[in-house]
Amino acid sequence: MSRRLEDLSGPEVGERITDSSIIVLPIGAVEQHGPHLPLAVDHVIAHEAAAALVAEYGDAHDLWLLPTLSISKSNEHAWSPGTLWLSATTMLSVLDDIARSIATTAARRLVFLNGHGGNSALLNVACREIRLDHGLKTFLVHPFVPADHGGESPEAELGMGIHGGHQETSVFLHLRPDLVHLEKADRAVPAALADNAHVKFGGLTSFGWLSDDFFPEGHIGDPTTANAAEGKELFETAVRLLGEQMAEIATFDFGR
Amino acid sequence: MSRRLEDLSGPEVGERITDSSIIVLPIGAVEQHGPHLPLAVDHVIAHEAAAALVAEYGDAHDLWLLPTLSISKSNEHAWSPGTLWLSATTMLSVLDDIARSIATTAARRLVFLNGHGGNSALLNVACREIRLDHGLKTFLVHPFVPADHGGESPEAELGMGIHGGHQETSVFLHLRPDLVHLEKADRAVPAALADNAHVKFGGLTSFGWLSDDFFPEGHIGDPTTANAAEGKELFETAVRLLGEQMAEIATFDFGR
Amino acid sequence: MSRRLEDLSGPEVGERITDSSIIVLPIGAVEQHGPHLPLAVDHVIAHEAAAALVAEYGDAHDLWLLPTLSISKSNEHAWSPGTLWLSATTMLSVLDDIARSIATTAARRLVFLNGHGGNSALLNVACREIRLDHGLKTFLVHPFVPADHGGESPEAELGMGIHGGHQETSVFLHLRPDLVHLEKADRAVPAALADNAHVKFGGLTSFGWLSDDFFPEGHIGDPTTANAAEGKELFETAVRLLGEQMAEIATFDFGR
Amino acid sequence: MSRRLEDLSGPEVGERITDSSIIVLPIGAVEQHGPHLPLAVDHVIAHEAAAALVAEYGDAHDLWLLPTLSISKSNEHAWSPGTLWLSATTMLSVLDDIARSIATTAARRLVFLNGHGGNSALLNVACREIRLDHGLKTFLVHPFVPADHGGESPEAELGMGIHGGHQETSVFLHLRPDLVHLEKADRAVPAALADNAHVKFGGLTSFGWLSDDFFPEGHIGDPTTANAAEGKELFETAVRLLGEQMAEIATFDFGR
Amino acid sequence: MSRRLEDLSGPEVGERITDSSIIVLPIGAVEQHGPHLPLAVDHVIAHEAAAALVAEYGDAHDLWLLPTLSISKSNEHAWSPGTLWLSATTMLSVLDDIARSIATTAARRLVFLNGHGGNSALLNVACREIRLDHGLKTFLVHPFVPADHGGESPEAELGMGIHGGHQETSVFLHLRPDLVHLEKADRAVPAALADNAHVKFGGLTSFGWLSDDFFPEGHIGDPTTANAAEGKELFETAVRLLGEQMAEIATFDFGR
Amino acid sequence: MSRRLEDLSGPEVGERITDSSIIVLPIGAVEQHGPHLPLAVDHVIAHEAAAALVAEYGDAHDLWLLPTLSISKSNEHAWSPGTLWLSATTMLSVLDDIARSIATTAARRLVFLNGHGGNSALLNVACREIRLDHGLKTFLVHPFVPADHGGESPEAELGMGIHGGHQETSVFLHLRPDLVHLEKADRAVPAALADNAHVKFGGLTSFGWLSDDFFPEGHIGDPTTANAAEGKELFETAVRLLGEQMAEIATFDFGR
Repeated sequence: MSRRLEDLSGPEVGERITDSSIIVLPIGAVEQHGPHLPLAVDHVIAHEAAAALVAEYGDAHDLWLLPTLSISKSNEHAWSPGTLWLSATTMLSVLDDIARSIATTAARRLVFLNGHGGNSALLNVACREIRLDHGLKTFLVHPFVPADHGGESPEAELGMGIHGGHQETSVFLHLRPDLVHLEKADRAVPAALADNAHVKFGGLTSFGWLSDDFFPEGHIGDPTTANAAEGKELFETAVRLLGEQMAEIATFDFGR
Repeated sequence: MSRRLEDLSGPEVGERITDSSIIVLPIGAVEQHGPHLPLAVDHVIAHEAAAALVAEYGDAHDLWLLPTLSISKSNEHAWSPGTLWLSATTMLSVLDDIARSIATTAARRLVFLNGHGGNSALLNVACREIRLDHGLKTFLVHPFVPADHGGESPEAELGMGIHGGHQETSVFLHLRPDLVHLEKADRAVPAALADNAHVKFGGLTSFGWLSDDFFPEGHIGDPTTANAAEGKELFETAVRLLGEQMAEIATFDFGR
Repeated sequence: MSRRLEDLSGPEVGERITDSSIIVLPIGAVEQHGPHLPLAVDHVIAHEAAAALVAEYGDAHDLWLLPTLSISKSNEHAWSPGTLWLSATTMLSVLDDIARSIATTAARRLVFLNGHGGNSALLNVACREIRLDHGLKTFLVHPFVPADHGGESPEAELGMGIHGGHQETSVFLHLRPDLVHLEKADRAVPAALADNAHVKFGGLTSFGWLSDDFFPEGHIGDPTTANAAEGKELFETAVRLLGEQMAEIATFDFGR
Repeated sequence: MSRRLEDLSGPEVGERITDSSIIVLPIGAVEQHGPHLPLAVDHVIAHEAAAALVAEYGDAHDLWLLPTLSISKSNEHAWSPGTLWLSATTMLSVLDDIARSIATTAARRLVFLNGHGGNSALLNVACREIRLDHGLKTFLVHPFVPADHGGESPEAELGMGIHGGHQETSVFLHLRPDLVHLEKADRAVPAALADNAHVKFGGLTSFGWLSDDFFPEGHIGDPTTANAAEGKELFETAVRLLGEQMAEIATFDFGR
Repeated sequence: MSRRLEDLSGPEVGERITDSSIIVLPIGAVEQHGPHLPLAVDHVIAHEAAAALVAEYGDAHDLWLLPTLSISKSNEHAWSPGTLWLSATTMLSVLDDIARSIATTAARRLVFLNGHGGNSALLNVACREIRLDHGLKTFLVHPFVPADHGGESPEAELGMGIHGGHQETSVFLHLRPDLVHLEKADRAVPAALADNAHVKFGGLTSFGWLSDDFFPEGHIGDPTTANAAEGKELFETAVRLLGEQMAEIATFDFGR
Repeated sequence: MSRRLEDLSGPEVGERITDSSIIVLPIGAVEQHGPHLPLAVDHVIAHEAAAALVAEYGDAHDLWLLPTLSISKSNEHAWSPGTLWLSATTMLSVLDDIARSIATTAARRLVFLNGHGGNSALLNVACREIRLDHGLKTFLVHPFVPADHGGESPEAELGMGIHGGHQETSVFLHLRPDLVHLEKADRAVPAALADNAHVKFGGLTSFGWLSDDFFPEGHIGDPTTANAAEGKELFETAVRLLGEQMAEIATFDFGR
């Protein structure tokens, strides 16, 4: 049985979607990822992670998949032709429109499954707006939490591998090896940034950056050590962690 | 070789996309289509038609596919939970953002391949806005022109079969037979409307309508006669016609 | 007795406007029409057609005239100083504001009588928005349907006479001969466009265009053969057709 | 020779409109004016005053008339069906769009000739926005300055006659006697307001008000004493004063 | 006891704020005031006047102070780096947001105490919008009414002293003598403007202006004669007048 | 010498503000903080921390203070009258307007010093928007990083003390003891939330919440143990950490 909302008919939505259903919106991006990776990276990862999540845990937690939002807020890569990006206000409107639509179903839980770190802050904003404006319980999960939002990055990248680096390239070698040009990959680790105590990815001080602020190639990290085996493990761990999170989301209540 | 823009890397966009390239954005919808069809109908048709078009004619006319915009302006179905819809202003912003992004590449031609009739008027507006604001040549094509925009509808439907009727259901039986519940289909043809000389789909007078203005089921047409064989023929004809249109678009100039 | 809404007092609106009343908003434009016609063409035609319509059919169908919206979405002529134009979003807001106002009266039918083809797509959008947001029955009629929206254009113009051509100039020679400079008129027919099978006015493929994309003069058609006699006939036919449409609008119901 | 901008052709705009031209936009309103006056009052007065102004002083100061903006910001009368009103943001957008259009001509002076007091504050705002954004010299003039913007009001009305009172009704008896129902007029003077030292029309304290805050009839003033003779004098004085203002506007420079 | 709303806890708001409470929002500006005065002038004056007002009259009229809105619509000074300004639409949104918040308390009266003349027109607009949208009684008061809004200006300045002139500089010498550089002050009176009968500050014709339209220094008036003693008197008179206005506002009703 | 930008005159801005200057915008909030704390908490903390920071480190790093933005995005407390809040889009506009203003000075570094956790995500968004749109280097720092953005919270609060809890109350006891009603404080720790592995403040899963989702009192944490001594230490540590961050910001470059 399909767990894609769009595979239901109108009347079936009324029967199948209940207040225990969790609606999952995968959010990708189409944006430059350096010379070794295609624009599709975040799009593919969000899509594949969501598909695997629903395949493994869909029945357990009554998960329902929306079509992946392929294009999102990638303006840190606006300098690179081929990057497609929504402005912050457009993206907020899209999310509000989708949430306003979901709020007419019986479902009360909406999850953003976000594959693009550049969206995370805005999605956090949207979680609150939608909670207030449409009364839904809203959640934000990531297959891979970006280092600039508190996630981990390998030591070899000095903790600064956040875009097209070792981990992301490894995962992509696992998911779409045909689209990876590892021979074009080079190391692009902002060592000066890593030296900072506060102003760095994951540091106490956040800062606005564009992906060409650091290197002209556009990736930030070291893809040269990437490999499919590690990618497979990372991906499977990510899906398992997403499943754990869905389990909590399914029963989450504020306790009041 | 892939003809999806997102499968290119940033540097490859600079090499592969030229001023002879045609960028194709498939536009679908997630909206009720009566009790016999899933919400995904327009989404699937736009996606499949675009894929077939690019597979057959991509090299001939240098076509490049963007990810399908799955959710669009479906507010005539807002009454039916499960329908996901962008407001008119959100949708204009999304299209403007995408066009603004494409305008930084070398491509000068942007085609909206639209599977949802409810978008057609707005896409016509967007074609002009983008031509003026971003200098692109813009085009709007349909796999199936809706009857309320001048397209044909079988006589048995009195020319009023515009949503989930004989043709659309036939095409879907061809593309996704597993998702069609023909046993739930009934005839829903607004005969009184067809009797009008002017105020009807395709008539001299346009009018605002919501899909539950006519029948509570939400489809408009007669799906009971639908069959996969006719759907196959319709689909193949549509793809061939799209191919013909691309041939003209590829060499189109205003002649000035 | 006046049939202009604005000639009523507030209390009279409560008495005279009922749920059988039809509110008619004429929509014109102030935009270049080539060297032989004034900017006022669409403004005048919409205004005169609406006045004639209400004079002849106002009592029969309880028609009420709003002041003509003289300035509208003419951005295809933005290159020509003197053209006055509202952006798409401004125009949508204006229409929404007017509809929101009308919805507080007892009238339930609002007709856009549009003299400028550049508005047609946007007005189609507005018809639906207003139907959903304010509950009005909304209609779009034209004195002359532009060829790029399915209307006719003389064969001598290869079907491409859509702006300041034979028909429009003829009508204007009938309505305001003093404002026509026929001696400055020349033939401006985009023959290459007419040769296309699909990408042309009224073809299967819509496209974004600006009026100086074709010829530097700004009109599109052949005004050199225009004459007042034919204009008179065209105008009278148009008014009669508008009357017929009002008759259907007056009794129109969705049939549910 | 016509002095309506819209009567020019595109090429004529290039010849006739120069940097000494003054563009005049009459701004009216369609809004309730009590039981004795039609909705059209401000619309008619702005239109007639502008027409008289241009007829008498057009050649002297190179004045060019735009079509009257009939519907404007009348939300203080939103409670009364028949009132048509633009929101503040819509109205700002309309004015910006018109100014942006005018700025492409050679003219550098744009005058708002405003017949509706409810617009005055917003037009003051627009004057500055347009000066900064489009570089035009902008001016705001009134045929009759409303008492709540520093204008005069007869003593018999305690200085509070600002809407449908003695003066406005008199002027309308002069311009459109057929549309006045003096027999329905009654005195509606907010005496308590007039007793205030500061919080009153023209007082030190401005305040937000709706026209039904004072009396249910909707006018504010005493129309019972109105007469056409006084209206004629008021109107002619107004036109003469507008002429004087145009003379100064024509040569106005900031002196830097 | 504090009369700052922000010094209350949430539950105390429910107890202390009643329908007789008057909420006062001081509105300043950060904008150039010529070479002799700091950017803070309007900010300080609004803040100090509001503080004095509440100190003297707070208990009598149940006044409650909001934090001063320090940055507002100063776009006439946009040319001068250091000026901080909100656009007209941003400012309208800020005021609407604040009013929407206040409307959830028991208070029904909201007063804008405005120190910057460039805001006055927009605040007049906001007074009406808020009255209609949130049902509050709204008021606009000034410590000093600018000459271009009907206030007085000394004869020595030809009535044109509206920004950084004799009076404002005097008041600032009283409030913050340490921040005044009188030795840098020069006379900047637009004499040509004063010669006009209509097009001048306080004249019949309003006009759009930027502060560098007149003089490159940016102030408009004659600060060279300013002195603290006169400033003290002006300030104390202003506070007394504000107190009188609050007394009327406290009991103000429309009389219906 | 003052280090408030607003204390400079226009010409002084040109002299004193250089490309080594750091502009600091303190951002507070006026929002409910439970029964024991005033609405002003975040406003006061941001203001005082910024003042202390500039007093101690202003000369060392060329810091310049803007007026505190007192009202910000507090919509999680919208349910509590007295809370004043800007919508997300208003707040983005305010920040963009201020950044657009700052970008006309010679300064290239803009720091948001944020006292309200509800702003953090939106400020992260703004940092990027401003970097792209105005070319400024943008930074976000906090006196106290909220636990839901990765900051610490005492164990006694189970790590869930994020609003009006032990730490914030302690700091406020240090800064404004007169405004604290510790006798009204009670423990409000969402123990069920703390039990979660992922869906909790600082957990892997972010979620949208309103402050009354947990407890009707509106605070989240345990203020009963708060004391001024600890508050003093926390505050001084915060200021020292802010100083360290400014040192890095002063020399920060992307390294390209």
